[in-house]
Amino acid sequence: MKFVLNSNNLTIEQAYKIATSRDIKIEIAEEAIEQLEKTRELVFRLADKGVPIYGFTTGVGWNKDKQIFEDYFEEYNRNLIYAHCLAVDPILSEEKVRAVMLARLNALLSARTGIQIKIVEMYRDFLNHGIHPVIPARGSVGAADITNLSHIGLAMIGEGDVFHNGNRIPAIEALKKEGFTPIILGPKDGLAIVSSNALAAGTGALVLEKAKNLLEVANAVYALSVEGLDGNITPIRPEPNEARKMKSQIRCADAIRKLLEGSYLQDKGITKTVQDPLSFRGAHAINATILDSLNYVCELLTTQLNSSDDNPCVVLEKEEIISCSNFEVANWVLGFEMLGQAVAHVARSACHRTIKLCNPHFTKLPRFLSPDEGKVQAYQTIQKTFTSLDGEIRHLMNPASTDYYSLSGDMEDHATNAPYVVEKTEKIIDDAFYILGLEAMHAAQAVDLRKVDKMGVGSKCLYDAIRSRIPFLEHDRPLTPDIKAAYEVVCNQDFIDKLKLITGGF
Amino acid sequence: MKFVLNSNNLTIEQAYKIATSRDIKIEIAEEAIEQLEKTRELVFRLADKGVPIYGFTTGVGWNKDKQIFEDYFEEYNRNLIYAHCLAVDPILSEEKVRAVMLARLNALLSARTGIQIKIVEMYRDFLNHGIHPVIPARGSVGAADITNLSHIGLAMIGEGDVFHNGNRIPAIEALKKEGFTPIILGPKDGLAIVSSNALAAGTGALVLEKAKNLLEVANAVYALSVEGLDGNITPIRPEPNEARKMKSQIRCADAIRKLLEGSYLQDKGITKTVQDPLSFRGAHAINATILDSLNYVCELLTTQLNSSDDNPCVVLEKEEIISCSNFEVANWVLGFEMLGQAVAHVARSACHRTIKLCNPHFTKLPRFLSPDEGKVQAYQTIQKTFTSLDGEIRHLMNPASTDYYSLSGDMEDHATNAPYVVEKTEKIIDDAFYILGLEAMHAAQAVDLRKVDKMGVGSKCLYDAIRSRIPFLEHDRPLTPDIKAAYEVVCNQDFIDKLKLITGGF
Amino acid sequence: MKFVLNSNNLTIEQAYKIATSRDIKIEIAEEAIEQLEKTRELVFRLADKGVPIYGFTTGVGWNKDKQIFEDYFEEYNRNLIYAHCLAVDPILSEEKVRAVMLARLNALLSARTGIQIKIVEMYRDFLNHGIHPVIPARGSVGAADITNLSHIGLAMIGEGDVFHNGNRIPAIEALKKEGFTPIILGPKDGLAIVSSNALAAGTGALVLEKAKNLLEVANAVYALSVEGLDGNITPIRPEPNEARKMKSQIRCADAIRKLLEGSYLQDKGITKTVQDPLSFRGAHAINATILDSLNYVCELLTTQLNSSDDNPCVVLEKEEIISCSNFEVANWVLGFEMLGQAVAHVARSACHRTIKLCNPHFTKLPRFLSPDEGKVQAYQTIQKTFTSLDGEIRHLMNPASTDYYSLSGDMEDHATNAPYVVEKTEKIIDDAFYILGLEAMHAAQAVDLRKVDKMGVGSKCLYDAIRSRIPFLEHDRPLTPDIKAAYEVVCNQDFIDKLKLITGGF
Amino acid sequence: MKFVLNSNNLTIEQAYKIATSRDIKIEIAEEAIEQLEKTRELVFRLADKGVPIYGFTTGVGWNKDKQIFEDYFEEYNRNLIYAHCLAVDPILSEEKVRAVMLARLNALLSARTGIQIKIVEMYRDFLNHGIHPVIPARGSVGAADITNLSHIGLAMIGEGDVFHNGNRIPAIEALKKEGFTPIILGPKDGLAIVSSNALAAGTGALVLEKAKNLLEVANAVYALSVEGLDGNITPIRPEPNEARKMKSQIRCADAIRKLLEGSYLQDKGITKTVQDPLSFRGAHAINATILDSLNYVCELLTTQLNSSDDNPCVVLEKEEIISCSNFEVANWVLGFEMLGQAVAHVARSACHRTIKLCNPHFTKLPRFLSPDEGKVQAYQTIQKTFTSLDGEIRHLMNPASTDYYSLSGDMEDHATNAPYVVEKTEKIIDDAFYILGLEAMHAAQAVDLRKVDKMGVGSKCLYDAIRSRIPFLEHDRPLTPDIKAAYEVVCNQDFIDKLKLITGGF
Repeated sequence: MKFVLNSNNLTIEQAYKIATSRDIKIEIAEEAIEQLEKTRELVFRLADKGVPIYGFTTGVGWNKDKQIFEDYFEEYNRNLIYAHCLAVDPILSEEKVRAVMLARLNALLSARTGIQIKIVEMYRDFLNHGIHPVIPARGSVGAADITNLSHIGLAMIGEGDVFHNGNRIPAIEALKKEGFTPIILGPKDGLAIVSSNALAAGTGALVLEKAKNLLEVANAVYALSVEGLDGNITPIRPEPNEARKMKSQIRCADAIRKLLEGSYLQDKGITKTVQDPLSFRGAHAINATILDSLNYVCELLTTQLNSSDDNPCVVLEKEEIISCSNFEVANWVLGFEMLGQAVAHVARSACHRTIKLCNPHFTKLPRFLSPDEGKVQAYQTIQKTFTSLDGEIRHLMNPASTDYYSLSGDMEDHATNAPYVVEKTEKIIDDAFYILGLEAMHAAQAVDLRKVDKMGVGSKCLYDAIRSRIPFLEHDRPLTPDIKAAYEVVCNQDFIDKLKLITGGF
Repeated sequence: MKFVLNSNNLTIEQAYKIATSRDIKIEIAEEAIEQLEKTRELVFRLADKGVPIYGFTTGVGWNKDKQIFEDYFEEYNRNLIYAHCLAVDPILSEEKVRAVMLARLNALLSARTGIQIKIVEMYRDFLNHGIHPVIPARGSVGAADITNLSHIGLAMIGEGDVFHNGNRIPAIEALKKEGFTPIILGPKDGLAIVSSNALAAGTGALVLEKAKNLLEVANAVYALSVEGLDGNITPIRPEPNEARKMKSQIRCADAIRKLLEGSYLQDKGITKTVQDPLSFRGAHAINATILDSLNYVCELLTTQLNSSDDNPCVVLEKEEIISCSNFEVANWVLGFEMLGQAVAHVARSACHRTIKLCNPHFTKLPRFLSPDEGKVQAYQTIQKTFTSLDGEIRHLMNPASTDYYSLSGDMEDHATNAPYVVEKTEKIIDDAFYILGLEAMHAAQAVDLRKVDKMGVGSKCLYDAIRSRIPFLEHDRPLTPDIKAAYEVVCNQDFIDKLKLITGGF
Repeated sequence: MKFVLNSNNLTIEQAYKIATSRDIKIEIAEEAIEQLEKTRELVFRLADKGVPIYGFTTGVGWNKDKQIFEDYFEEYNRNLIYAHCLAVDPILSEEKVRAVMLARLNALLSARTGIQIKIVEMYRDFLNHGIHPVIPARGSVGAADITNLSHIGLAMIGEGDVFHNGNRIPAIEALKKEGFTPIILGPKDGLAIVSSNALAAGTGALVLEKAKNLLEVANAVYALSVEGLDGNITPIRPEPNEARKMKSQIRCADAIRKLLEGSYLQDKGITKTVQDPLSFRGAHAINATILDSLNYVCELLTTQLNSSDDNPCVVLEKEEIISCSNFEVANWVLGFEMLGQAVAHVARSACHRTIKLCNPHFTKLPRFLSPDEGKVQAYQTIQKTFTSLDGEIRHLMNPASTDYYSLSGDMEDHATNAPYVVEKTEKIIDDAFYILGLEAMHAAQAVDLRKVDKMGVGSKCLYDAIRSRIPFLEHDRPLTPDIKAAYEVVCNQDFIDKLKLITGGF
Repeated sequence: MKFVLNSNNLTIEQAYKIATSRDIKIEIAEEAIEQLEKTRELVFRLADKGVPIYGFTTGVGWNKDKQIFEDYFEEYNRNLIYAHCLAVDPILSEEKVRAVMLARLNALLSARTGIQIKIVEMYRDFLNHGIHPVIPARGSVGAADITNLSHIGLAMIGEGDVFHNGNRIPAIEALKKEGFTPIILGPKDGLAIVSSNALAAGTGALVLEKAKNLLEVANAVYALSVEGLDGNITPIRPEPNEARKMKSQIRCADAIRKLLEGSYLQDKGITKTVQDPLSFRGAHAINATILDSLNYVCELLTTQLNSSDDNPCVVLEKEEIISCSNFEVANWVLGFEMLGQAVAHVARSACHRTIKLCNPHFTKLPRFLSPDEGKVQAYQTIQKTFTSLDGEIRHLMNPASTDYYSLSGDMEDHATNAPYVVEKTEKIIDDAFYILGLEAMHAAQAVDLRKVDKMGVGSKCLYDAIRSRIPFLEHDRPLTPDIKAAYEVVCNQDFIDKLKLITGGF
């Protein structure tokens, strides 16, 4: 498989695929190469005319008042890479490094920097040949991720380490093995390599795909739980949702109806209980909050991935190079913050549903879903496990984007902590997968105790996945392994792909 | 002026106008009345058939297991109003009460409750006759605002107090004065009055209008500041923003260019400083974050204002009444949280710009914008004032929507704290107006010290507004009154309307 | 009554009394006057020698590089007062203004500033004659409260407004009425007036007294609730608490035993229920968290009130004036943050207890404490009221002390937001009083329904106070007034003093 | 070396030593064994009499209403261990496992549970023989750590895994290798094993020792920085600190004076700059905030480590077993929250000092401490690195202790998230070590550029430690390795022990 990048066509889904698999080979669109050539030529022409160009003929940050001379270009740019290698462990996973390189490559194809083409091609080659520079994850304030992206530049000039075929080796060795020679840096190259939000944007794209998966899982887990409860599913009927007019809510209700296709609950009318607790009754609307957040942030991040986040900005048609702030990312960073809070609502509702499933008042099943209340303690104390994870989420969802300093001689007085915000959103989602896995474990137990024979097509799919790893709880046993298994079940991509087939995906 | 409500046509702007002025008379669309009549008839018919109807033939909350009999309808519904009068001071302003009644009225016109038509008409009459029930603001967890909206019901049955023609008087007196008789409650009426998010939705609409105003002011203040700095305005040129592709950023750059139309800065090319601090260079992109947030939340709140947030939901065409969760509002509540954070970014950048305006290194003007550094202390310590307000914003922007309990016998286990979130967003915006007023005060001083003769049309408008209240700082004087004046200037609706004429509005 | 201040003997309790009553006349200890005289003489002597003295012969902040000459002293100091009048509404209550002036006065008596004695005496006179300058509350970052304290200086020179005998009048009029002449400022006076944390320290002392009151009330409310529950009081017996060894827990258990002296619960052994929910079982330990926090912060704030928070610091015995950082207050500001969180734990437990009191499973009383479940809805929805206030507390308890900027030419790069932290702690405590009032209302209803005849001496005191304002809930009625009444009952100082007599006070 | 535990003598320092080294052999005091025997005998006697005993003759949590019969004791207790194995990865380090077992052992020696003595001895044996059960770290809400401590019980009965001599092996194998036989559980044993806060208490003790180390390092780094600045050290003279009366501030000033003994700064009087920025001037007072927090939390945690946190509580002298809440830990959990905020203040001041060290305006040294401003970019961008870590701290310091649910049939309605709070405090401290390491790196560069020849004894110690790993920055080089090295230098225990010798330790 191949994918031709042109700075306009990279979706979040595509980015996820390229990052997580090496089967897709990247090509660069020809017209993009042409633009890159013209841009580089223009930048040199302007420099020759004596136009001061930030990061070319001038220093960067406070040092914009220093002039850079031609005989110093190579050394200056190498020093710039060195002086920006300022990151802090832990190191990024290889799939994240791929996402980051892809994000940077596609933005460079906008042809707004004047970077030399060999470097652009080397991003492609690194992706295609599985050369993954070692990049420590921390150290960026999100405006831009210059302390981390420098490590890609370091590898390109044959220094530092990379991962290659499963090993961490010196970059120079990997280049040799794959038949490449190190880059000789020229003017503008250093800045073009480091000055981008590609760390947050690339890893962010992966997180958004996980959030979509989470939404699928949240709907399916709810479907199994409501069967476990013998609950009232009138709230997901089309009519009340149309009265509400919220698009996301209508869509989630629709997805859950598909997941419950064939369920015994569909045969029932309004239950005797009139209505269920809100965590059940409103589940589709609460899950829809994730969808609303995703709609917001996916649109903006897609723009990010397909536009230039460089400063300054070359304008070919006007033969100019313009100071700008195209690395401002607060709008989508706030989208990640909102997404984390949306997931928190879903996680919290999952906790409340799981607690209800243990309560005979609501289920008419044994206390704590025990097969024998007198002998088997079953799911009592496990409430602490999932609510403690929810406590973590509550903490992680606190906002982080405005806590920055005024730096570099007060030149850099806005930032967003974008990589950290993305990372904590990922943790929130990961904790939510645990919580939903735990709910699914309870729901499967409830469905078994209730001896449900007609399950929905989607809830059955989840039930089977759980039961393939976790047997019915007949006797007390250590549940630590079950918890891990439940988490792995609901995170599993094959399982989620099955759900997507049922719901149509988001 | 009149406005015919039909549950489909209420914009946030219109809601703001109706709430803040009594010049617009409300009418109810005829087709809406018809629907209301049919709905009420259906609900009675279903009850006669013995269908259990939540809040009609059953109690509410945990008491859904209690049956309500016909001879008890009036008393039950009056008791329901009483038992939901559970609010806590402070009391809402009259303009907020109007917004709340309007929000409730329009949602009722969806005809999903079965409420009696006289009550619906009384919302209209209260608005048109300026009868504004006294409603304490606190006590709702946002699912729904039942502890507060009950006070409207109380006034309708002639109990409790209202504001009327500037006085707080017993509701019964106001009814008499305006020629109305108290409502006799029937079945379903109590629940239909209280069970809605109209408190948060109505006050939220007002806050969103303020946020739009804030965005106008933020752009204008930046325009004046960049003139005060003698800064580089290339970042707001169309070209780099088109390279970035972010719609909101493009639009804010456009607005600021309009505000700076005619400015001396337009005659300059790229400045010698190459580029300015990020708080200047990125101002339009940071301001655009408010626009992105507004786009998100305005769409959802408009849907809220024009749809039913009632449970259960009457479905006329199916002759059913369905349990639902249409009072779930987490999606737009999270939008308010995001908006607060966006405003925080803008406020923080305003602080950094204002600090820069006091620094000769950036301005080449006297330290602290003093007309005489040796004699006049001018704007040194005032940095504490605006940054302390920014500290408040940092605190207020912490999220609040997930901190709820499981209540009413564990039936109500999801909520959003919607009214509180709206209220704290309002405070954030109010503090931001102070901060922008203070920046404008500084910028005006800088422009005077710089003896700028050609100002932009929008920055001049702001300059004139400031100078109409605050003279040039020639000698030290107590600045507490100036701070208040600057705040009042930038909050002033007439002034903001002038800006809107220039920018075209958002 | 009189109280002789000497900068060593001001307790928090005493400060509270002086602030809240005008019956106590302040005198200044003679030895303090002597020290003040010597200090002023020394400062002038050093200035004559040409020693640069911050705020005397030099400017302040970034302007420490500017020299101040003798003929300019009066004008400079007046300008300094002017240029520090930078505060933002709302204005402080008169009792807070008194606390602030008292805090400043006592710190000045340390004789570390060189201020003229007439000014020191005017603080005393303002207190004794009820001249209370109008001070807006906001605008300080807590290092120090210079933007607010300046307004006291303004009044002393006969400018600005004051409250006097219940009216807001120009300062100059109040001075005349009481027979004082305005101060003529000399060198060092301006800085000595403004440079102090007296705003946060003075208002903080009042808040700590309220927190002590809250602890008394929390214990008494628990005592009434456990009677309402017919709960198990073995956890407050001395033995288990001695096994735990926590002093604060031992003390709270002791206080509650005293409050329950004579209760029917004392006659019972271990109940059939074995043990109660944690919110009951652990109440004394959770309440003790307030005591631990108070112990921490009261010690530090007492030191604050009785020491110099001035910079620079005059050292008489060495004949020097030394640059220092004695206005650093982070240690006790963090104590207020901790106190807020401790109160949050108490409030949250109160909410959980109140919910339990409505649950027949725990109480064997009617649902929602209704005298007639079929007819009276009673205390169902009110759960939203108190938990919404708890949601506010959860939000307010987020920390605020580290959110400051680097100001005044980067000279002032540490702060604490002390006044804001104190203010939000006060709000937390106020909300907690509401929550405890609501619990007390429930507990009284439970005790009545249970027909308890032998109540504890302290719980009876609370019961009587509640019933003096709020009758038994026989029929549904609007509860908004009851909520307010319950709050007023538990805030009432006379009532709290009765409790203190029983427990011995904290 | 041996240490005789008796439930009264375990200090935090001692706990740290035992956890981090296997050289100290634990013994149990004879009198403790006697008490344990008497207690077990009493519990059986009471059970025989038919007294209901929680977790012995009754179930736990909601299941306290279930009776446990004698022939089921072993199975019930094994099931209890199983049903509490509910933890979530990551797994604890071995040193943390040791701290946890030690904490539990010492609390058990209070003899309040009735546990069999063989189990108590096995805690000792596990410690002495290096048998370290695999314990996942997450899953506890802090009331108590029952989901994690169960894994110790699992190993004791020969199930699950342990670390032993560097390998993860089945527990049964480790028992065999060391000559032990698995425990046969009896009544009360299960509850006594799991029901404790030993996870948070044990790991908390380690964190407090790290915080003490951090305080030493913070003082030393400040000492080196103020030499790098050529700053004014009058604020650490005894006189102004005595005028302030804050004990912690006096002590930190004293420690820093010792660290600066012999420094060239001591020879200087008041500098021409009059006073330095607050981050320098107030460093000792800000660092002292850590000391105040430590004083608070160490006292309470020491009580925790030397008292019973069990419920119910056996009272030998009264021959009773009493329901209690001795696992309430909110008071010291809030101390950890406060400690995190104190560290945040210190970290933030370190950031501001480091920024100043790069600014010629304050240092009169080259910009960004470059040895050649035109050629070497040096420490410009690294400001992003340390401030991004400070941003993390700002996020982590948000409180987490009140975010709990009501669980186990609403019996467990208070908690503290103690293990999570401890863990995030550890992360804060770890980030602060990075920040201080980075400051030290800058300070060493500044001292070199300034050619300081007389350094203080403590600042020299730090300088030498830094320079042993990080050479002077002569040319730009990748600094990622330097950052890691600086962190390792300031975390190094041997280095810190040298500082303690100089300051006397805290």
